[in-house]
Amino acid sequence: MIKNIKLKIEYDGTNYAGWQRQINANTVQLTLEKAIGKVVNEDVNLIGVSRTDTGVHAKEYIANFSTNSTIPAKKMMHVINNHLPGDIAILSSEQVEPDFHSRYSSKGKIYSYTINNRQEKVALNRAYAYHYKYPLNIELMKEASKYFLGEHDFSSFRNKGSHVVKTVKNIYQLDILKQEDNVIIYVYGDGFLYNMVRIMVGTLIDVGRERIKPDRIKDILLAKDRKCASKTAPSSGLCLEKVFY
Amino acid sequence: MIKNIKLKIEYDGTNYAGWQRQINANTVQLTLEKAIGKVVNEDVNLIGVSRTDTGVHAKEYIANFSTNSTIPAKKMMHVINNHLPGDIAILSSEQVEPDFHSRYSSKGKIYSYTINNRQEKVALNRAYAYHYKYPLNIELMKEASKYFLGEHDFSSFRNKGSHVVKTVKNIYQLDILKQEDNVIIYVYGDGFLYNMVRIMVGTLIDVGRERIKPDRIKDILLAKDRKCASKTAPSSGLCLEKVFY
Repeated sequence: MIKNIKLKIEYDGTNYAGWQRQINANTVQLTLEKAIGKVVNEDVNLIGVSRTDTGVHAKEYIANFSTNSTIPAKKMMHVINNHLPGDIAILSSEQVEPDFHSRYSSKGKIYSYTINNRQEKVALNRAYAYHYKYPLNIELMKEASKYFLGEHDFSSFRNKGSHVVKTVKNIYQLDILKQEDNVIIYVYGDGFLYNMVRIMVGTLIDVGRERIKPDRIKDILLAKDRKCASKTAPSSGLCLEKVFY
Repeated sequence: MIKNIKLKIEYDGTNYAGWQRQINANTVQLTLEKAIGKVVNEDVNLIGVSRTDTGVHAKEYIANFSTNSTIPAKKMMHVINNHLPGDIAILSSEQVEPDFHSRYSSKGKIYSYTINNRQEKVALNRAYAYHYKYPLNIELMKEASKYFLGEHDFSSFRNKGSHVVKTVKNIYQLDILKQEDNVIIYVYGDGFLYNMVRIMVGTLIDVGRERIKPDRIKDILLAKDRKCASKTAPSSGLCLEKVFY
């Protein structure tokens, strides 16, 4: 009997060319499919909740696959983990309904973006944060973040590379926290376009740097033109925190 | 005129064979001496506050060197940083009194040790924490930590490799914090023997695991015998936080 297995996965994206399977590149999906294939002794097609870029991390990535294996679902995580390198960890494995689909069933996601905002050079945690050395005005960034809330067309905050037709997304929450040297931005929305969080962060940085006014976000959204938003922030600061179903 | 330059340094110890200059090994001291040598155009003998092992990190390591260079002391950090790899960062450079000696002038140090205490496999931040998957009783660890406070002979908490004669050290403070999955142990003392913090942590873990009672620390200290203490905890969790003068 075919079972649908759902995996919760943590990974350090530093040494991978993102999630998605590619020819001639080491990706998280490919590494997992190889490990699972060894365990279930079948070819595996792993469906992931989202494509992530090189260097992007995940604390709770969700993926699922179909298998004929008789290994109990909850036991699978331990066996697969033994075939995985240290930078990919399965946190749980469970059998789910046949129609569960990691991507299509997803109702929302939380991403975090970490900016190390100190003047001095940074040696520690460089794989997990973007070092931005100029002072950021957090209050202005918080003010700007309000304009992202709710339903908007995010065409201005999308890089080429995605084939998504629906560019209207709903942002439920956007929090900006200061923790020692770090400014951490949490974005919770129903879905995200290609590089959307990173372009939002790049634009919030320009607000914090006082290069653009907070209410400029409103105009950038209305323009529906990528050229109106700021630079895409580097991938290392980005982490998929949680997926909702 | 010879100047004595004090450097404050952050480094990620993952890819170094510790601080101390060695033949045929890439160390933090050697990497810094080469970079500084290029800048001041002299051979440099860098004095560091302590020898750290492979994989140990530092947020505020202190080192000093003598130079004839006419480059203003405060400017030096920028020039040297340009010659350093990304995992070593000079945070400040200043001219100090001729008799300042990073090691001998030191009045105390704070180390932190991070244990990732969750059951699941860990993929993120593996270079900065020791993953210990069995539940730890933090209250017992806190009780045990009190026995370390004050002046004691720490011979039981020293591995071979140090030639220090004075084995009596004073622990001013020992705090144990729980932050999400992490248990973080801060140790503040006037000085530390070779691997002392890591053996203290290994022993505290045995207390948290309820293998030994908290007041057993008292007996281990009195025994002055390395065999009475527990295993040395791995280096990755250890970080030099601060040095006092």
